[in-house]
Amino acid sequence: MDGPFVLGVDIGGSKVAIAAVTPDGQILARASMPTQAERGFDDGVHRILSLADQVMAQAQRPRRALQAIGVGCPGPLDPAQGIIDNPYTLPTWEKVDILQPLRSHLGVPAALENDADAAAMGENWLGTGQGARSVVMVTVGTGIGGAWIIDGQIYRGAGGAHPEMGHQCIDPSGPPCYCGIRGCWESLASGSAIAASAREQMPDRALELSGAAAVIALARAGHPAAQEVIARAAQAMALGIFTLVNLYVPDVVVLGGGVMDAYDLFEPAIRHVIERDTMAPTDRIAIRKASLGNDAGILGAARIALSLPHH
Amino acid sequence: MDGPFVLGVDIGGSKVAIAAVTPDGQILARASMPTQAERGFDDGVHRILSLADQVMAQAQRPRRALQAIGVGCPGPLDPAQGIIDNPYTLPTWEKVDILQPLRSHLGVPAALENDADAAAMGENWLGTGQGARSVVMVTVGTGIGGAWIIDGQIYRGAGGAHPEMGHQCIDPSGPPCYCGIRGCWESLASGSAIAASAREQMPDRALELSGAAAVIALARAGHPAAQEVIARAAQAMALGIFTLVNLYVPDVVVLGGGVMDAYDLFEPAIRHVIERDTMAPTDRIAIRKASLGNDAGILGAARIALSLPHH
Repeated sequence: MDGPFVLGVDIGGSKVAIAAVTPDGQILARASMPTQAERGFDDGVHRILSLADQVMAQAQRPRRALQAIGVGCPGPLDPAQGIIDNPYTLPTWEKVDILQPLRSHLGVPAALENDADAAAMGENWLGTGQGARSVVMVTVGTGIGGAWIIDGQIYRGAGGAHPEMGHQCIDPSGPPCYCGIRGCWESLASGSAIAASAREQMPDRALELSGAAAVIALARAGHPAAQEVIARAAQAMALGIFTLVNLYVPDVVVLGGGVMDAYDLFEPAIRHVIERDTMAPTDRIAIRKASLGNDAGILGAARIALSLPHH
Repeated sequence: MDGPFVLGVDIGGSKVAIAAVTPDGQILARASMPTQAERGFDDGVHRILSLADQVMAQAQRPRRALQAIGVGCPGPLDPAQGIIDNPYTLPTWEKVDILQPLRSHLGVPAALENDADAAAMGENWLGTGQGARSVVMVTVGTGIGGAWIIDGQIYRGAGGAHPEMGHQCIDPSGPPCYCGIRGCWESLASGSAIAASAREQMPDRALELSGAAAVIALARAGHPAAQEVIARAAQAMALGIFTLVNLYVPDVVVLGGGVMDAYDLFEPAIRHVIERDTMAPTDRIAIRKASLGNDAGILGAARIALSLPHH
């Protein structure tokens, strides 16, 4: 086999994953490593290039069959310039050019996108939002990230900025958010919001409630205070989706990220609010759990690579 | 003068206005009449056709120079089919075809759009949002309507539906809204919300507080309870704009409608919230009062007519 392929790279705070992917979305080979951003950007790039070489060797396709490479990474970043500027979740990676070393080492075009945008591209290509004209993907993890793919393109606004869906006002009496207002969606329905609210409700269990997963496990075990915390987060989740539906009127809302692994706990509140919504054509708008899991990022990055002009 | 022109029609609950407009936006002639929808749709269409004839005669251009006619009208309506289905604010106008009689009487192409979409097209063409790539226009009157023009086109979502910006959740402890949830933007910041809130705060003045204009006048006169009502509405106004900015990331937000005639009372709260917003590139996003006033509708309808293919 020597058909064309691309590389999709998913850089996360804890892990870097790379896959060799065919134009029809088949993963030929994959590998991952700890990110360890704090070791410095040059070290990180060096290890990413080695990992890319390793994946290409595993894929058993000639190097000349490589067409392009796409990278998804948590922002802030500048997709047009290929600059990552995220010392917050990638310590020391401040205003660093990720694309130039990839291009010069691999000799192919390269593209960088926000990780939420890449995941949404992946779900629109091969996952829950497959083939839909307009897909809003919401990733609920530590924070809430959002991306909107319309006609196969990542939506960008003024100055190329992508939407900040986690920062819509849901409840002005809610907790203060770093964005400047109170009661943002992220401050009410994200994993860290769920964990913080649970620690406040159950101070005696504060140590074990370090993340949403622990709260979800307690709720599933029938603990009333944990169930109450999840119920409130689910209601906030539903109201945020209500606003997304009325403002974007998308074909599909895809819900991904670690917290949405427990989608069954959130779904009744979401369905209740959306089914009451008399304004948007909610009979035409599907709300669904993401289906690609952690592969959304590498597949979306691969899809972005495939859209680059190549030789 | 016998240069080409179009007709722009602005149908409102109380008034129908028609203007003859040149391709560069000059109003050659205009006229208006009471809508009196309750007299029935056939009667209404007959009077609209007469008014159109009158405006063309006033314009002193030959009828063959008429290229097209555009109509803006409060929805629900189906722009693709030319069907108005709004017995709520246009009594008896239920599933009626407005375009067929216009086309057959005038012999030119005709188009129908939602009034908020038409006003936004007008402001993007000749008003506050002139020349901007992405303009969100919010019309604050009895309700809150919104429209988004991007690359000169009216944004439509699933099933051709336009966004319902008045129905974003701003405060879940707010008043119940007909859309199905509590504390929608419209239920907190519209003219009728302002009047209802004022009547609740000042029961002794309930009779005189029939609309937002009376509350605004009282606030301007220094009445503390009225000032408090306006301050709360301004805060809700600001939070809704915050969400629009973070979700659409437009170049310009244009604020129109009767309530925004008192924009000076709302502006401080809006500026305060938007300037604190650390997420969107708010240094690139302008928030401005609409500049075309009541002409936004006829000019936008004319712009829509100009975009139709003509002979």
